[in-house]
Amino acid sequence: MQYIEPLAKLIEHFRALPGIGTKTAVRLAYHVLDMDAAKAKALAGAILEAKEKIGFCSVCCNLSDRDPCAICSSAKRDQSTICVVEQPQDVAAVERMHDFHGVYHVLHGALSPLEGVGPENLRVKELLARLRDGSVSEVIMATNPNVEGEATAMYIARLLKPMGVRVTRIAHGLPVGGDLEYADEVTLAKAMENRVEL
Amino acid sequence: MQYIEPLAKLIEHFRALPGIGTKTAVRLAYHVLDMDAAKAKALAGAILEAKEKIGFCSVCCNLSDRDPCAICSSAKRDQSTICVVEQPQDVAAVERMHDFHGVYHVLHGALSPLEGVGPENLRVKELLARLRDGSVSEVIMATNPNVEGEATAMYIARLLKPMGVRVTRIAHGLPVGGDLEYADEVTLAKAMENRVEL
Repeated sequence: MQYIEPLAKLIEHFRALPGIGTKTAVRLAYHVLDMDAAKAKALAGAILEAKEKIGFCSVCCNLSDRDPCAICSSAKRDQSTICVVEQPQDVAAVERMHDFHGVYHVLHGALSPLEGVGPENLRVKELLARLRDGSVSEVIMATNPNVEGEATAMYIARLLKPMGVRVTRIAHGLPVGGDLEYADEVTLAKAMENRVEL
Repeated sequence: MQYIEPLAKLIEHFRALPGIGTKTAVRLAYHVLDMDAAKAKALAGAILEAKEKIGFCSVCCNLSDRDPCAICSSAKRDQSTICVVEQPQDVAAVERMHDFHGVYHVLHGALSPLEGVGPENLRVKELLARLRDGSVSEVIMATNPNVEGEATAMYIARLLKPMGVRVTRIAHGLPVGGDLEYADEVTLAKAMENRVEL
């Protein structure tokens, strides 16, 4: 009898969230008990509302509360340039840059034979469908700069090339504000290889 | 337009929780969107249920789903020894020890003039009421070993002494498994002062 049952249940639920250990889960649960009732109700409501209202855009497969999403249906966005990313979070990252005016395609993962993720588990079919009418001129592969992301970029590039569309990959190099001394060899080699004229 | 509205709202709610920064809040919110609907519903339900079912024990002021709580109404617990703690979490800590068979009293805080917490903000009145019939023989002050906790222990001890009840304070000393080399001076001095015969 360490925790009373409704509290133990709440702790269990918090502990199931990513990056939340037992101690944090206990702290969060006690915090919820300490909240006023209206605030706790609002928290529970926000969870339910987000699940209910947010689905996938049928065009770009990003999370959205309408279909097509705000970006896909915007007249201000260049519909002929598609930036392909792994996760909805990546769309948010590119949008923070305020510098990309094309549209997106979210794969919802990357190829990973070890984890059993093949092309059929990604939204590749949906991407191919968008290219069929010939209105897209460039596809920018912005998958993560790791093994899975590279493999995914290569795989999709090979699929798209025969369709006559330009496929590019975001550059590898030193992060801005980074330190040459602490850069890993592979990144440094990529930075050298992709050097530009000044 | 960085996050769609229901997602932004959920992130805001997570960010309001203690120890959750923006990045963790974003990660949690995306995780909730990724959960299956039944699990998200169960999480929201656990929050509501905990708030609804858990109140305060009218005897010891601990969080409880019944009144009086399981400890206060247990025939196995020694009702003549009261362990006074600051928070419900502290009851859980003492219970984990499996070695205390008395009952508790939760103050819900500690005296802190700087934060405007006076005796009237703590459950001191309720503690005094429990001592009135003379059935309690010892009150163990288990408030935190910091300035506020010490001041609270001293204050309550002074209040209870005239009632003829024995008031004790949990010992200060080196933590078991600790390292003498890294002990702070005050703790070491306390450990010396409270040394016991071997």
